[in-house]
Amino acid sequence: MIKTDILIIGAGPTGLFAVFEAGLLQLKCHLIDALPQAGGQCSEIYPKKPIYDIPGFPEVLAGDLVDNLMEQIKPFQPGFTLGERAETIEKLDDGSFIVTTNKGTQHHAPIVAIAGGLGSFEPRKPLLENLEKYEDNGVAYMIKEPEIYRGKKVLIAGGGDSALDWSIFLADVADEVTLVHRRNEFRGALDSVEKVQQLKNEGKINLITPAEVVSLKGEDHLEKVTVKNTTTSEETDVEVDNFIPLFGLSPKLGPISDWGLEIEKNAIKVDNSLDYQTNIPGIYAIGDVNTYPGKLKLILCGFHEATLMCQSAYQKIFPDKKYVMKYTTVGGVTGFDGSKKEAPKAVVKAID
Amino acid sequence: MIKTDILIIGAGPTGLFAVFEAGLLQLKCHLIDALPQAGGQCSEIYPKKPIYDIPGFPEVLAGDLVDNLMEQIKPFQPGFTLGERAETIEKLDDGSFIVTTNKGTQHHAPIVAIAGGLGSFEPRKPLLENLEKYEDNGVAYMIKEPEIYRGKKVLIAGGGDSALDWSIFLADVADEVTLVHRRNEFRGALDSVEKVQQLKNEGKINLITPAEVVSLKGEDHLEKVTVKNTTTSEETDVEVDNFIPLFGLSPKLGPISDWGLEIEKNAIKVDNSLDYQTNIPGIYAIGDVNTYPGKLKLILCGFHEATLMCQSAYQKIFPDKKYVMKYTTVGGVTGFDGSKKEAPKAVVKAID
Ligand SMILES: Cc1cc2nc3c(=O)[nH]c(=O)nc-3n(C[C@H](O)[C@H](O)[C@H](O)COP(=O)(O)OP(=O)(O)OC[C@H]3O[C@@H](n4cnc5c(N)ncnc54)[C@H](O)[C@@H]3O)c2cc1C
Ligand SMILES: Cc1cc2nc3c(=O)[nH]c(=O)nc-3n(C[C@H](O)[C@H](O)[C@H](O)COP(=O)(O)OP(=O)(O)OC[C@H]3O[C@@H](n4cnc5c(N)ncnc54)[C@H](O)[C@@H]3O)c2cc1C
Repeated sequence: MIKTDILIIGAGPTGLFAVFEAGLLQLKCHLIDALPQAGGQCSEIYPKKPIYDIPGFPEVLAGDLVDNLMEQIKPFQPGFTLGERAETIEKLDDGSFIVTTNKGTQHHAPIVAIAGGLGSFEPRKPLLENLEKYEDNGVAYMIKEPEIYRGKKVLIAGGGDSALDWSIFLADVADEVTLVHRRNEFRGALDSVEKVQQLKNEGKINLITPAEVVSLKGEDHLEKVTVKNTTTSEETDVEVDNFIPLFGLSPKLGPISDWGLEIEKNAIKVDNSLDYQTNIPGIYAIGDVNTYPGKLKLILCGFHEATLMCQSAYQKIFPDKKYVMKYTTVGGVTGFDGSKKEAPKAVVKAID
Repeated sequence: MIKTDILIIGAGPTGLFAVFEAGLLQLKCHLIDALPQAGGQCSEIYPKKPIYDIPGFPEVLAGDLVDNLMEQIKPFQPGFTLGERAETIEKLDDGSFIVTTNKGTQHHAPIVAIAGGLGSFEPRKPLLENLEKYEDNGVAYMIKEPEIYRGKKVLIAGGGDSALDWSIFLADVADEVTLVHRRNEFRGALDSVEKVQQLKNEGKINLITPAEVVSLKGEDHLEKVTVKNTTTSEETDVEVDNFIPLFGLSPKLGPISDWGLEIEKNAIKVDNSLDYQTNIPGIYAIGDVNTYPGKLKLILCGFHEATLMCQSAYQKIFPDKKYVMKYTTVGGVTGFDGSKKEAPKAVVKAID
């Protein structure tokens, strides 16, 4: 059982910044995310695109913003359960919670902060007969550890940025990379499309278009996929160890909608006049996942909500302590890793 | 009469970021500040100190944060009335406002956003008999345009960062710089103290300590000050064109407290459950200057408040338009200066 002070569901920008604010209050955080990496929509949907409305950044790439937040929270050493979906919640007699993921990992905390954005990112799966048989036996919908494909024969399907970028990346890692797409045209960043063209010309990516995978074969583990040319209807078998359909991930509020929380417009209602708490005491909702009058689904709003939420959580965990806010400039930042950041002090010095 | 869409009182980080959010909504802003420069507390009190809790910045100097904000709002060409204090407000029959400064400058706008922080920064003045006679006639408490001291004989009084830094700066501009302080010890950044020591050794700053200015002389304009050694009580006359006592600025809510706004704990009460509006419709209060249950006087909170305030202001100005929020990444940023920032678009391109 993983134990922490604030259990954060969702490692998007809001959840990440909550770790920092909690850390300033000496509270530990652990984050659960369905995706294999932190950063939420910023990392998954538009890591290479600029955002213009983060205060103090005339322009920042979404991926760089996430990198900066990871750097900012590093001293507070948050825990991560990645690639797992928070599935069920149980309230114990002492008011604390146990949250269990779809893979059975259990987390225990007095405070739960849902920073689930538009929901847990779930892959769009192809319609193939025995697909489930091969899940975790050759079929995967996201790439958690690219190294497991070293020396393997990998077939990727899809026509967007993920399919392009992972084909490029795995061309250097896997033994064979085949990219299948049902059109000849790909949709993505210009340099990614051009790089795939080049790797194809060099024989490093095997391209099959316009085509789609129509069946999977193999004893226990995946061994072969059948690819059908969508123009000629001709079918070919390709020997593969792995089939990775990258048809995009779509967010679903999913299991959280059954936790007894008040839901409105597919979001969780919170008390914005105080601390972004939900109708269940001890459970907060911050960032894109919440709703209240005038709510804007913006990153900078999630930062503010996370900050006020942490103050309220602190008071719940330590009802008897009086917290006196100190500016970071004045009080510094003391990380759980022993690091200390402090502003240079003024000197008092005679001039003679 | 200066006309604008949103008149912002206070050019601290909150007021500055409001310009950006208003700009995204195609609303024009004008800012009034009692200080000669933008940036509020960040510029006036701790420009060279790091802040650690601005989201996405593991560390940023307060002065750099202000520079970044100025860069971010540049496309929206805000107007500035600097070095003047907003003094009175008048509500016209059509619901719009006229705000007049202590120097008589008038501003007209349908919306007023008070982003006045801890209040308007007012100088601590020395107790000298005919001080007022020489105000704007040789005596100044802040430096608005350093160039007016070119070729002049300047006497600065004070022992902190402002006195040190301006002595250093003016040593290159003025004809003569004298620095008077009532102790031998100065309190400031180490490098500033050392630089003054060096300039003194080079004869570029004339240092008189421990001493204080005890009287001012001159026909119409200041001509001489009398400096008294606080140990020996010896008095000396120094010929000067300018006397600049830099004894610090202290913020005072001041005139705004008489505008009929609900005040609590020296701050303006706002409706945080909606849009940070005050008890007077059309007047908002954002940033350090406001208060509500759970309020934190933090920069990142001001950013959020400014954003929600602008949305509400938009609806007041255009009651019939339905505003559909667009992400900056998707919709780009179109400045009033004709500039346009846009994310690179995805291409659709065949690979052959
Ligand atoms: C193309 C695009 C452009 C954008 N441009 C801007 C912009 O310019 N400015 C701006 O402010 N915003 C922009 N946004 C919106 C911005 O990305 C979101 O406001 C922000 O990501 C919200 O952060 P969050 O942390 O609240 O949620 P998210 O980033 O959505 O992260 C939530 C995370 O929670 C996880 N999760 C949810 N439920 C579960 C569960 N049950 N178990 C495990 N994990 C779960 C999800 O997998 C996800 O990773 C843009 C969005 C898109 C798609
Ligand atoms: C030493 C120090 C360290 C700090 N460290 C941190 C930190 O680490 N993190 C953090 O988040 N915050 C920190 N703060 C607080 C932070 O600086 C404030 O929250 C922030 O400046 C508030 O911004 P603002 O725009 O609301 O107001 P301010 O910065 O106070 O600006 C208000 C402006 O309004 C002007 N004004 C007011 N009334 C009038 C009037 N009637 N007419 C004309 N002008 C007027 C004032 O002159 C001033 O320039 C620190 C503050 C100090 C002093």
